[in-house]
Amino acid sequence: MQIGMVGLGKMGMNMARRLLQDGHEVVAYNRSPAQTDALAKEYGGAIAAHTLEELVEALEPPRLVWLMLPAGQIVEEHIVLFTNLLSRGDVLIDGGNSRFRDDIRRARQLKKHGLHYVDAGVSGGIWGLEIGYCTMVGGERDMFELLTPLLTSLAPENGFMYCGSHGAGHFVKMVHNGIEYGMMQAYAEGFALLDGSEYGKGLELSELAKLWNQGSVIRSWLLELTENALERDPHLINIAPYVEDSGEGRWTVEEAVRSAVPAPVLTLALMERFRSRQSNSFADRLLSALRNEFGGHAVRSAEDGAADD
Amino acid sequence: MQIGMVGLGKMGMNMARRLLQDGHEVVAYNRSPAQTDALAKEYGGAIAAHTLEELVEALEPPRLVWLMLPAGQIVEEHIVLFTNLLSRGDVLIDGGNSRFRDDIRRARQLKKHGLHYVDAGVSGGIWGLEIGYCTMVGGERDMFELLTPLLTSLAPENGFMYCGSHGAGHFVKMVHNGIEYGMMQAYAEGFALLDGSEYGKGLELSELAKLWNQGSVIRSWLLELTENALERDPHLINIAPYVEDSGEGRWTVEEAVRSAVPAPVLTLALMERFRSRQSNSFADRLLSALRNEFGGHAVRSAEDGAADD
Amino acid sequence: MQIGMVGLGKMGMNMARRLLQDGHEVVAYNRSPAQTDALAKEYGGAIAAHTLEELVEALEPPRLVWLMLPAGQIVEEHIVLFTNLLSRGDVLIDGGNSRFRDDIRRARQLKKHGLHYVDAGVSGGIWGLEIGYCTMVGGERDMFELLTPLLTSLAPENGFMYCGSHGAGHFVKMVHNGIEYGMMQAYAEGFALLDGSEYGKGLELSELAKLWNQGSVIRSWLLELTENALERDPHLINIAPYVEDSGEGRWTVEEAVRSAVPAPVLTLALMERFRSRQSNSFADRLLSALRNEFGGHAVRSAEDGAADD
Amino acid sequence: MQIGMVGLGKMGMNMARRLLQDGHEVVAYNRSPAQTDALAKEYGGAIAAHTLEELVEALEPPRLVWLMLPAGQIVEEHIVLFTNLLSRGDVLIDGGNSRFRDDIRRARQLKKHGLHYVDAGVSGGIWGLEIGYCTMVGGERDMFELLTPLLTSLAPENGFMYCGSHGAGHFVKMVHNGIEYGMMQAYAEGFALLDGSEYGKGLELSELAKLWNQGSVIRSWLLELTENALERDPHLINIAPYVEDSGEGRWTVEEAVRSAVPAPVLTLALMERFRSRQSNSFADRLLSALRNEFGGHAVRSAEDGAADD
Repeated sequence: MQIGMVGLGKMGMNMARRLLQDGHEVVAYNRSPAQTDALAKEYGGAIAAHTLEELVEALEPPRLVWLMLPAGQIVEEHIVLFTNLLSRGDVLIDGGNSRFRDDIRRARQLKKHGLHYVDAGVSGGIWGLEIGYCTMVGGERDMFELLTPLLTSLAPENGFMYCGSHGAGHFVKMVHNGIEYGMMQAYAEGFALLDGSEYGKGLELSELAKLWNQGSVIRSWLLELTENALERDPHLINIAPYVEDSGEGRWTVEEAVRSAVPAPVLTLALMERFRSRQSNSFADRLLSALRNEFGGHAVRSAEDGAADD
Repeated sequence: MQIGMVGLGKMGMNMARRLLQDGHEVVAYNRSPAQTDALAKEYGGAIAAHTLEELVEALEPPRLVWLMLPAGQIVEEHIVLFTNLLSRGDVLIDGGNSRFRDDIRRARQLKKHGLHYVDAGVSGGIWGLEIGYCTMVGGERDMFELLTPLLTSLAPENGFMYCGSHGAGHFVKMVHNGIEYGMMQAYAEGFALLDGSEYGKGLELSELAKLWNQGSVIRSWLLELTENALERDPHLINIAPYVEDSGEGRWTVEEAVRSAVPAPVLTLALMERFRSRQSNSFADRLLSALRNEFGGHAVRSAEDGAADD
Repeated sequence: MQIGMVGLGKMGMNMARRLLQDGHEVVAYNRSPAQTDALAKEYGGAIAAHTLEELVEALEPPRLVWLMLPAGQIVEEHIVLFTNLLSRGDVLIDGGNSRFRDDIRRARQLKKHGLHYVDAGVSGGIWGLEIGYCTMVGGERDMFELLTPLLTSLAPENGFMYCGSHGAGHFVKMVHNGIEYGMMQAYAEGFALLDGSEYGKGLELSELAKLWNQGSVIRSWLLELTENALERDPHLINIAPYVEDSGEGRWTVEEAVRSAVPAPVLTLALMERFRSRQSNSFADRLLSALRNEFGGHAVRSAEDGAADD
Repeated sequence: MQIGMVGLGKMGMNMARRLLQDGHEVVAYNRSPAQTDALAKEYGGAIAAHTLEELVEALEPPRLVWLMLPAGQIVEEHIVLFTNLLSRGDVLIDGGNSRFRDDIRRARQLKKHGLHYVDAGVSGGIWGLEIGYCTMVGGERDMFELLTPLLTSLAPENGFMYCGSHGAGHFVKMVHNGIEYGMMQAYAEGFALLDGSEYGKGLELSELAKLWNQGSVIRSWLLELTENALERDPHLINIAPYVEDSGEGRWTVEEAVRSAVPAPVLTLALMERFRSRQSNSFADRLLSALRNEFGGHAVRSAEDGAADD
């Protein structure tokens, strides 16, 4: 099957490779041409397009164009550009981490131009090339069926699913990432407790992660990654305690608030990431200031005094 | 190898079977004799002991006695009983969910009688018979080595580990369960959001759990169990929203507090279980009462008024 | 000073009374006329308007119109209506709990019609009549100055403030309510612990609230209200554990997420309110189901078994 | 009335002064004699004791000895010392922040020696001299009645209370401090949001705190202290974001866990203090490491790529 792939980053490049390996024809475009050319030169490689116009011309209608771009403004811009470049009946797939509410709006706008829009939530990260990408699809069902040969190549066995109408793919992916934040935080707190308690001091944490992956209740792929990370750097001394977040964790919290569904753990996991990026917390300074206000000087000598409030 | 197994509940019974399957000799005791006799009658079965004295007599010194009892008073009582029944050089293993601080005390006391004490944290639940039990061991290292043939039979490949001196096995198991609570809560909140949001309404949640187990970042054994549970009862209508906790989640929080290591997600996961068991929360009644105090009657008609505070 | 007051609910009615008591001329309107007429009949009462047109006609330009309506669609509708009824130079004040982002948009739209917009966050609830309303004002500074005589009558001494340009009043009020949720939850949890612990069983909680208001660190107006509520109903047996939330707590969380400022306690306080309204939590059912999946039946007899995982 | 005061720190010194001002006779002891002598030299001052023996001798039986020492080992040591120094019928009062479980044990032990034990939770901090100390008393009721003249002098009007048998005073004080942590955190998060959001940038936070103390729902003594702190240092630039905790917040969490009463906000407030003291969080490093494991390099250029998972 023929497809245009726009964006050859860590995700898009390997997704293109999986498609090529399965015999699909990939017309590839990336803003900086080095990746495009590299992919074209690989064995059984892609057809290089150096402009979006070239990409559109190289595809036969009805064209399938898969956007694999960082979420946000860049996706929006490309959708505007393709609205003008594509023809009635063509299909635009957004495989990035867009907000599902944007999908609903975009699908409506593109429909006015006779274009189909599909939202695809894609999980798997840099391991997807080998294992396949778990893919959650939203949009018209017949578009999902049209894409099935490509999804079959991209995903592991049983690894793609039609989740519902426009936005459903990214909605499900959003919740997936919310859960991911919560799970990661659970592991992080547990290992931090082992690291920080006198009773866990002697443990080789990577060996423990490995052990727990053998039959314990908490075995998981994230725990396998924990094993790898701790094997490489047992005390994580080369890693800064600075944790980014992408939009999806935030949207999960916002949707929980909108739906009035409590999600305390998913929310706290997000907020801990915010906290990790603060070097001089105002809240903590105020707490410390207040303790001084009611209890006197912060530094007390044991022999002098009593209860500080 | 020969071992005495005390307690043939869901865990102990199947652990005995795994040992028997591997050719070990198991002398088995259970308070109610039905299980003991059942196990004795199985092909290649155990030697039945109907009293602790019989069990001790049936074992050759140095005796290995594995306690697989519910955590708490019952374990304590059996340790006292065996202190009197066993002889110098014998080994008592506690495979239940004891608190690691108890292990340290018990080991010291048993040592005075010339007895060895080993604490073993065992994970795997009812799936352990088939998959093996992930086992975390604390105590003297040469006792761990002595037990290795048994642990090899009990655990999956690479599924047991020496964690350190007395208490280390249960300490590690405690943190394991703390993480387990956090992970379970993360999944529970995510699926509840899917269930409670208008955008997730049409989804078949068991299919989604299945999908996510194919290559997604959040794939895990707990997610496989989620798949099973949702397949059997897609909307969980036959399940009460009442969640028990065992001691280990609580101890994890207590140790986090003692060590001053923040563990907000593990803690909240525990407290959500407490919350699930409250049918008429005093805190919520007070909140509601306070809203009345400052804002007037709880019921307001839209046409009448404004901000309630 | 002359002002039109639209909305005579629990807040608007008493605010009108405070203005009347200070000699201001109030033209009053309420959707259902009973309140309007009641207010007109009071000593030194308001001028009754039974339509918005009557209200506008009764006011001399530049007109001041204060909306005291429930947040949401109703406010939006009235702003549209007044956009058509008012004349260049008139001032529309929204004293309800609107979202500050709406203020920014409204101010821009009203400016096109030559109208001024002021957002006023008002706190004090049903006690405001007696104590005065703490008022946080956003908009053009000269409009704030124009309103000062009215604000002086509405608020206690030093109880109003110019917070910044459009939206600033409601932004500050939003954070105020976020803090309010957190404080209320802190008290609620503390008293619930006293109620739920064996060591707090004998305590007369209303007396304790009263005690704590005498010189303790946690004394506050909310604690005085707690005292009142517990005096009236010592065990809160007539109150349902069902806690509403208004928009402001939710927006606080959303703004925290947007600004990447951690606000775990404010967020949890909100989510506890969501939780209070769930009678059959899906999350808890899934947790319970999962425990069954790995640990076997939920009901275990003490004599039979061991660790459930 | 005559009393011995042991420990002249920030609390004990001022408590002695309040007692002296009301005409009580205070025999004072402090480990370092400077405070003792200073207090003795004040107008209407105390009788100086330079050893515990001197203190005991200067008191007439039945002696009242009030310990105002930092919680922990020092209190324990003094109780042992006084067990030997005091005579049958004497009364030992612990006014520090002891754990209520210790009170129960101590009362039992002292009773064997014919000594009475009273636990008194005291709140008010450095403001107590002026305002009085809110005092929560546990022990035998007739001891409470015996102490009433002293408590009347120490506390503001209606500011002391009999809370129940041994431990009840410190139990109630413990919950008080738990609530205090939650309230402080609520304010801290709210002000941090004002500080961290673009919409709060121009606000003078001390003025806002002052405003909120005039009639708003969240007015409180802690908010008055916030006002003071922000007036002195508007951006808190001279304060380190490092927040200590004393034992009582921790015990509150432990008791919540023991009683299975959810206290998420009180708990998080404590854990945020732990967090404030971490300069290189292991949990955050693991989170960051995991993001690298599944998503590739942390630094991505916008033009290259897409979704990181």
